[in-house]
Amino acid sequence: MTETVRDDFQPSFDAQGLLSAVVTDVESNRVLMVAFMDAEALAATRSTGYAHFHSRSRGRLWKKGESSGNVLAVQRILVDCDQDAVVVECRPAGPTCHTGAVSCLFRELDGDVLRPVKT
Amino acid sequence: MTETVRDDFQPSFDAQGLLSAVVTDVESNRVLMVAFMDAEALAATRSTGYAHFHSRSRGRLWKKGESSGNVLAVQRILVDCDQDAVVVECRPAGPTCHTGAVSCLFRELDGDVLRPVKT
Repeated sequence: MTETVRDDFQPSFDAQGLLSAVVTDVESNRVLMVAFMDAEALAATRSTGYAHFHSRSRGRLWKKGESSGNVLAVQRILVDCDQDAVVVECRPAGPTCHTGAVSCLFRELDGDVLRPVKT
Repeated sequence: MTETVRDDFQPSFDAQGLLSAVVTDVESNRVLMVAFMDAEALAATRSTGYAHFHSRSRGRLWKKGESSGNVLAVQRILVDCDQDAVVVECRPAGPTCHTGAVSCLFRELDGDVLRPVKT
């Protein structure tokens, strides 16, 4: 395979101008949420040290925790091989999910039903 | 907040017919790759027990490892609060990344440069 992997950061936004952004808890390594960043959200995340996303439903920049106070302090940003996804390792100030759960991924698939995750 | 969270599995595909799909290693909890599933890929993953995705670049169903042999045996599927993302906990048969790295997230952002992840 002759494919090379770039070492300069050149994020590869998709046709909608988005990257996948996966937030993990830097302590537990658990996935807390999955969202999207556009160039504006990525820049805001990098400049402020707090996770920002692009809300597809609201069509705007969204600082996680802007209303709840449950912000995500960024510790490290991992970038995948083709630079179209990032993993944002964070320290959460509180529950990440709007339901009050620690993680948005609080259910697992069991047949066609969702059950609370057994941890 | 009056929003309810459904307990039946009703995946919420986006305008392109896709869900975000994050693969983690069930042992280390490390994120191995980030991709997308359409209904076909989700069904194939559930029926075979091996992770399948929708390749946006190739426009087709893609069984991870179909050419390399580095398949991902699915142990559990977590579903997020609004059912537009899944975390697929897997046992990988080999390196997940096409570069030979264990994970596609093998680099971290350091200024505007990507460095190998310090683990």
